[in-house]
Amino acid sequence: MSKYWSSMAKRAKPYIPGEQVNKTNIIKLNTNENPYGPSPKVAEAIKAEIGNNLRLYPSPTMDTLRESIGQYYDVQKENVFIGNGSDEVLAFSFMAFFEPGKKILFPNISYSFYPVYANIYHIDYEEVPLLGDFTIDVEKFFDSEGGVIFPNPNAPTSIYLPLEQIEKIAQHNPNSVVIVDEAYVDFAEASAISLTKKYNNILVIQTMSKSRSLAGLRVGFAIGHETLIEALIRMKDSFNSYPVDRLAMAGAIAAIEDEAYFEETTKQIIATREKTTEELQSLGFHVLPSSANFVFVTHPNVDAKMLYETLREEDILIRYFGTTFIQQYVRITIGTDEEMATLLGAIKRIIRP
Amino acid sequence: MSKYWSSMAKRAKPYIPGEQVNKTNIIKLNTNENPYGPSPKVAEAIKAEIGNNLRLYPSPTMDTLRESIGQYYDVQKENVFIGNGSDEVLAFSFMAFFEPGKKILFPNISYSFYPVYANIYHIDYEEVPLLGDFTIDVEKFFDSEGGVIFPNPNAPTSIYLPLEQIEKIAQHNPNSVVIVDEAYVDFAEASAISLTKKYNNILVIQTMSKSRSLAGLRVGFAIGHETLIEALIRMKDSFNSYPVDRLAMAGAIAAIEDEAYFEETTKQIIATREKTTEELQSLGFHVLPSSANFVFVTHPNVDAKMLYETLREEDILIRYFGTTFIQQYVRITIGTDEEMATLLGAIKRIIRP
Repeated sequence: MSKYWSSMAKRAKPYIPGEQVNKTNIIKLNTNENPYGPSPKVAEAIKAEIGNNLRLYPSPTMDTLRESIGQYYDVQKENVFIGNGSDEVLAFSFMAFFEPGKKILFPNISYSFYPVYANIYHIDYEEVPLLGDFTIDVEKFFDSEGGVIFPNPNAPTSIYLPLEQIEKIAQHNPNSVVIVDEAYVDFAEASAISLTKKYNNILVIQTMSKSRSLAGLRVGFAIGHETLIEALIRMKDSFNSYPVDRLAMAGAIAAIEDEAYFEETTKQIIATREKTTEELQSLGFHVLPSSANFVFVTHPNVDAKMLYETLREEDILIRYFGTTFIQQYVRITIGTDEEMATLLGAIKRIIRP
Repeated sequence: MSKYWSSMAKRAKPYIPGEQVNKTNIIKLNTNENPYGPSPKVAEAIKAEIGNNLRLYPSPTMDTLRESIGQYYDVQKENVFIGNGSDEVLAFSFMAFFEPGKKILFPNISYSFYPVYANIYHIDYEEVPLLGDFTIDVEKFFDSEGGVIFPNPNAPTSIYLPLEQIEKIAQHNPNSVVIVDEAYVDFAEASAISLTKKYNNILVIQTMSKSRSLAGLRVGFAIGHETLIEALIRMKDSFNSYPVDRLAMAGAIAAIEDEAYFEETTKQIIATREKTTEELQSLGFHVLPSSANFVFVTHPNVDAKMLYETLREEDILIRYFGTTFIQQYVRITIGTDEEMATLLGAIKRIIRP
């Protein structure tokens, strides 16, 4: 601390992202990245954009990318907001829709960036307990004072909440915004984007970091009623006119347009997830029913922290949170079949020495 | 407006960036971009980074780029903060160092994003009048309540404030942060980075968008005492873990390392600026003494708005602000010699029909 820090700098409790390592030959299953790399068309599009144009500012309105995303999801570009990864979109959403003094609700086991934003912007919040099976207790999210936010599928639990339930939450919060953070939805049943046409208080946030394998490029987006999008644009234009660069924009458009590649790789990840789930279960793990590109698991006889640390020594990175309620759980990203086979081999050695 | 908007969304008065047009064959002298394009090594570095790595998150700590910048400016990486363009660095600085209720000072003719940030974060501010010759009235910035910020060279005036004057401002604000926004400093005499070693309350902010021709890539940075940098990191990590993507990071490192290209293009822009200044003066313009990659000019017999609009019809874009005190001024970015010749030809036709 320093006398030069503002009260905001002093009260901040920054988010700690999963480790990024420079080592090669590591099996990296700790930050839910996609094992397959982006569509080959992404590289082509980026190469075409390199050159003298880099000297020029990107489009501050990002119309072309908004149109691509709109076309893919059958909404207008006025219903689409783009940001530097879904984290930035989330930050702008906390600024645009949540009010100091009006309590918002999110699950007590959830994305740990939410309390960080709330704290920075002086938003009161209540962490609503999940049910015993780690599902969301829908009625507890009715009649919020200041709004609702939750990931769907939830993170790190991986559990999906059906759209009828989301609809109920929106109906019971007519005066505030319900944010559905769909970072992992492409590995699940269905997006709530369809509901944004019926409910002008639902905002859906997605990222191109997971299913479209562009974590390195930083593109996230929100879809909702034009009035909500307008508020997000006001926040962006009060913060940074051009948060998404030219290469990221070109790459993101190519990724959205290559539907075949997206469908093939997503299907493969889901297949590997199902196979990994069965194998972990056969080793005695309890695996929460996953609709994401990761599994959240616990074992009755194996200490989660020990498992994480021992795998780390073998150059296999998984995520251990060590926080209340989930101290005996680890989160494992779904990699390639080969990576999962290596992981399972290592786990077998660790739990049955 | 909507009942779903927060008070922050309602009070926002967003910044309006200079127009970005998609037209080719336009002479674009409205957003102070570099006419020369980045070092050829930038494209090489980006191409080497494209590929499967795009699936992985960038480094959240950005150590490699911080080290490159640190090495270039002879400071430690702990003295360097990186953001998504200098606008994001400015936003984090308003959050980290300025306090609601404590009035900050900036010039009344200055970067028009400052009041936007102040407004969003509830920071009181006073716009200190420039002197009659558009220079900064240094003593008026002494003993601020909450801090000081100004561009150097100032924008849009293009006028440079010597380091001795900045030193005085820092000495007379021992309890608050003095932010020197050096977007254009590479076209001027000297950076205040040298002062950050002596004064732990000076924060220097720079961008790679202008002198390093990477506006399309979004990289800005701040240099200052470790404690100030730590506060900025806390803000970033409470907002977005990875605001600078992999390609931008690779490109920025290449740009910083190619000193010869940087020096050559910067020298050329300064030479063109001097030549353009003389020619504008010979046409009767009053040209403020520029230390930037633009000139700020007025003509006793030519209406500024008319000049801007007529040039626009001829596909030459310059910037007209139309705000108090500078209604009869236009800002002209320094392009290539050829572009400036075309501009001067058009101006001649307009003012002497």
